[in-house]
Amino acid sequence: MKPLYEGKAKQLFATDDPQLLRVQYKDSATAFNGEKKATLSGKGELNNRITSLFFEYLREHGVENHFVKRLSATEQLVKRVEIIPLEVVVRNWAAGSLANRLGLTEGTPFSQPIVEFYYKDDELGDPLVTEDHIQLLDIATPEQLIEMRQISLRVNQLLIQWMDERGITLVDFKLEFGIDADQKLLLADEISPDTCRFWDKASGEKMDKDRFRRDLGRVIEAYEEILTRLGGRADV
Amino acid sequence: MKPLYEGKAKQLFATDDPQLLRVQYKDSATAFNGEKKATLSGKGELNNRITSLFFEYLREHGVENHFVKRLSATEQLVKRVEIIPLEVVVRNWAAGSLANRLGLTEGTPFSQPIVEFYYKDDELGDPLVTEDHIQLLDIATPEQLIEMRQISLRVNQLLIQWMDERGITLVDFKLEFGIDADQKLLLADEISPDTCRFWDKASGEKMDKDRFRRDLGRVIEAYEEILTRLGGRADV
Ligand SMILES: Nc1ncnc2c1ncn2[C@@H]1O[C@H](COP(=O)(O)OP(=O)(O)OP(=O)(O)O)[C@@H](O)[C@H]1O
Ligand SMILES: Nc1ncnc2c1ncn2[C@@H]1O[C@H](COP(=O)(O)OP(=O)(O)OP(=O)(O)O)[C@@H](O)[C@H]1O
Ligand SMILES: [Mg+2]
Ligand SMILES: [Mg+2]
Repeated sequence: MKPLYEGKAKQLFATDDPQLLRVQYKDSATAFNGEKKATLSGKGELNNRITSLFFEYLREHGVENHFVKRLSATEQLVKRVEIIPLEVVVRNWAAGSLANRLGLTEGTPFSQPIVEFYYKDDELGDPLVTEDHIQLLDIATPEQLIEMRQISLRVNQLLIQWMDERGITLVDFKLEFGIDADQKLLLADEISPDTCRFWDKASGEKMDKDRFRRDLGRVIEAYEEILTRLGGRADV
Repeated sequence: MKPLYEGKAKQLFATDDPQLLRVQYKDSATAFNGEKKATLSGKGELNNRITSLFFEYLREHGVENHFVKRLSATEQLVKRVEIIPLEVVVRNWAAGSLANRLGLTEGTPFSQPIVEFYYKDDELGDPLVTEDHIQLLDIATPEQLIEMRQISLRVNQLLIQWMDERGITLVDFKLEFGIDADQKLLLADEISPDTCRFWDKASGEKMDKDRFRRDLGRVIEAYEEILTRLGGRADV
């Protein structure tokens, strides 16, 4: 069966229900806008399971999202949405591109979380955009921006606490939103070590995709540890 | 006499009055964060005269600013302020870094002006920043940002009209603001072909620093033409 869309980390398949999609998580790892690539056996399953746990947790705590249910080790069923081409990034500590942009030392805590919008456009390299740029490009309405910001900050509160109880610092993460068949704004895509920075509270060790980006080794082991701390378990 | 500050385009000198500075406009031209350099004989005088005319015009139309008076061909007296390290950019047409960032064709008109803030930090390459970044770095208060945006849009309205009557399209421009001794937010720095994009309405020809950036030639001639159309005249 041919996917509707094949991304770097997932494939999307149609289902019998036009409002539902099957998502298949892949074992491929990419960084730096696809320049660095590898196959990491088991990553698809880990991200599928971790994302499923996060979305279930968020729904239980009042954050509606596209997740319907996990179908198998590497697949989940989701509501089909039209993705708003923005990556919403929430940051609690300085790291990565923001540390570079503003000349901050990685690991500096922020007194308030920072919300940023990046324009999802691989050719442009997913540039940082302001609300003026978003209006100019007609990517989202001002009301949708306010709602995305609010939901993202709520997700941040919920995930900070959940991870903290499991000995993990939530440094930053990326969310995507879409519009469903009822014109409702819905949290979508994935929440996993590919899209978050997780630091072990005790050791400071990175437990996310930075292990792959920066060649720190033990990538899959770190993702497994995240799944374990969330109370999940891989079949393999 | 030693300047208090020597920038790429101007020198600042103390005066007998601690609240006033003498600004000396230089003949040096720089682009790409100082990577490209040249001496353009007459540029200092032209930018001093053009800036003086713009600031007088703005004051007459209710936009308070640091300009006190022109002292000589290349010098002006200004109120001393503490500069807020932001470059406020207003854009009416796609050009330059914004066209590149968003993948827009240079010369596309905007239905609404775009206001952007760049963090004045040469080492970081003057990065685009959002309001969240500005709060994080404690560069300006939310109230100051609102005021800077309002004043910048007012300056835009006034300059669009003034230039239009002179056959010139105001494509974009950069402003700087500071805090004076009375804690008042004041428009400062310069407004000249070094800090604006001006396109001839009839021919579309560039009449600004892009002639230098892009090696189009006849840089000084274009600056002279701007001064002439504003009703000014160089001594030399
Ligand atoms: N519920 C949903 N309905 C429709 N599309 C979705 C949904 N959730 C996620 N998507 C989209 O599916 C794709 C997932 O694939 P993947 O994450 O591999 O893409 P990618 O390589 O990151 O590329 P990009 O995100 O830039 O398109 C993304 O484009 C994502 O925006
Ligand atoms: N009224 C004022 N009081 C104090 N400083 C001012 C005033 N107006 C402008 N300035 C500052 O004086 C300097 C002018 O010098 P110039 O434009 O040559 O600097 P530059 O090379 O552009 O460097 P930078 O602007 O990055 O400091 C700038 O730093 C500007 O912010
Ligand atoms: Mg993706
Ligand atoms: Mg300057």
